Amino acid sequence: MGMEHLEGRQSVTAALQARKRKFQLILISHSAHAEKVQEVIDLAAQQGVPVKTVDRSELDALAHGTTHGGVLAICTPKPRLDTDQLLELVDSLSEPPLLLLLEGIDDARNLGFVLRTAEATGAHAVLIKKHLWDLDAVEVARPASGAYERLPLAQIESVDVLQKLQSQGLRLLGCIAGARRTLYQARLAAPVILAIGGEKRGLSGAVRSICDEFITIPSRPEPSSLSLSHAAAIALSEAMRQRFSSKIFNNDKQVDDEMG
Amino acid sequence: MGMEHLEGRQSVTAALQARKRKFQLILISHSAHAEKVQEVIDLAAQQGVPVKTVDRSELDALAHGTTHGGVLAICTPKPRLDTDQLLELVDSLSEPPLLLLLEGIDDARNLGFVLRTAEATGAHAVLIKKHLWDLDAVEVARPASGAYERLPLAQIESVDVLQKLQSQGLRLLGCIAGARRTLYQARLAAPVILAIGGEKRGLSGAVRSICDEFITIPSRPEPSSLSLSHAAAIALSEAMRQRFSSKIFNNDKQVDDEMG
Repeated sequence: MGMEHLEGRQSVTAALQARKRKFQLILISHSAHAEKVQEVIDLAAQQGVPVKTVDRSELDALAHGTTHGGVLAICTPKPRLDTDQLLELVDSLSEPPLLLLLEGIDDARNLGFVLRTAEATGAHAVLIKKHLWDLDAVEVARPASGAYERLPLAQIESVDVLQKLQSQGLRLLGCIAGARRTLYQARLAAPVILAIGGEKRGLSGAVRSICDEFITIPSRPEPSSLSLSHAAAIALSEAMRQRFSSKIFNNDKQVDDEMG
Repeated sequence: MGMEHLEGRQSVTAALQARKRKFQLILISHSAHAEKVQEVIDLAAQQGVPVKTVDRSELDALAHGTTHGGVLAICTPKPRLDTDQLLELVDSLSEPPLLLLLEGIDDARNLGFVLRTAEATGAHAVLIKKHLWDLDAVEVARPASGAYERLPLAQIESVDVLQKLQSQGLRLLGCIAGARRTLYQARLAAPVILAIGGEKRGLSGAVRSICDEFITIPSRPEPSSLSLSHAAAIALSEAMRQRFSSKIFNNDKQVDDEMG
């Protein structure tokens, strides 16, 4: 399997902890703060990963930018879930699945931010209808702040897998402009896949044709607009809000009137 | 007044439409698509702004990056609101004011995304406790997708102006980790200032000491986290949701039970 680079203390620490990649070598700059890189060194020692101390200039030459903070790992790419693994994951959850499907994302940094938000708002996996190798993994990992290593990511080749998820009871909700129902009227505490398209073209016809429902994320009229990653944050946080409310309802047999 | 650059068709069009800057000259590349730049040319002609057609290489040399798309303007900076103008703006609104206060934002691109989201979710102004000239205006404007030109922006030198806004009836809500009340329990349809701090240090002591209430944006436990711009998107969209709900309530004398 081909090796790739992973840059930055936070990304490398998260990857070592997640134990989903195989590490060949970790390079640490002489000039890195000893305190800050101790956790990386300890984790590498526990897992038998060789660590080499090098000059900052050597790291700079290997790295994409100057934000590596003195830590760079050479490792296998983070594995993607295949269809069977995704279906298994969904089956194994103890709470209603919340998946995010992204189409038309062509900016690695935006994907990184989406992964970070998806993890923080409790999504169980992110599905991408795109060849992930078109996106630079270093650029995805940096803004994801470790979420890229932890959150399951599946690459979808066709809509078949979405239909399989639908037959497992998940509803596919397409976020599109102008839908009659809003995000806030959808039942997001149920098992759902939230589908969000790129800013230029929106959701593909193939995905639209199998959506169970369309919803719109309310916003002020044009020319104002939401970026893909911020639209995703708004949709996912509403799902979390509804799930939090329904948990209060289910566990305590009462609804906090302020939670709506 | 010093001149600055504004790059990209969308930013320049938005700035011409907003009529808040003075334009000295607009440069358009020979290789730009005539159709795409026609609106810029028409707006410039209406406003008596000279347009010069130049070689792409000349534009590239002047521009920050290669994403200018063949359009670059030399113009005055976008004016900021001073305290009196901000108080006047708040006074003139026909709906309860919704302001966003940002502290510790040190990434121009993140600020641009926040401005875009703030406009789309109906915020009336963004307040920044920071010397704005530390941030590159081109880098702010690009991700803001025109919102930088349209949304009022105020630079806050001290907390005095916040206290003045409080005496005008606005409540200052500080978003901090670990607050007892959540975002969803706060009354955001009332006149409010949502205060959000940077990822590293959070809100300053000066702002905390005058907050009327602290709220937390719920998210999964560490190591997951939200970026500043996505936290802002979640808080602002919840304010919009509550305002939308209360509008339904006030206008129609009924509550859609699904809206919460």
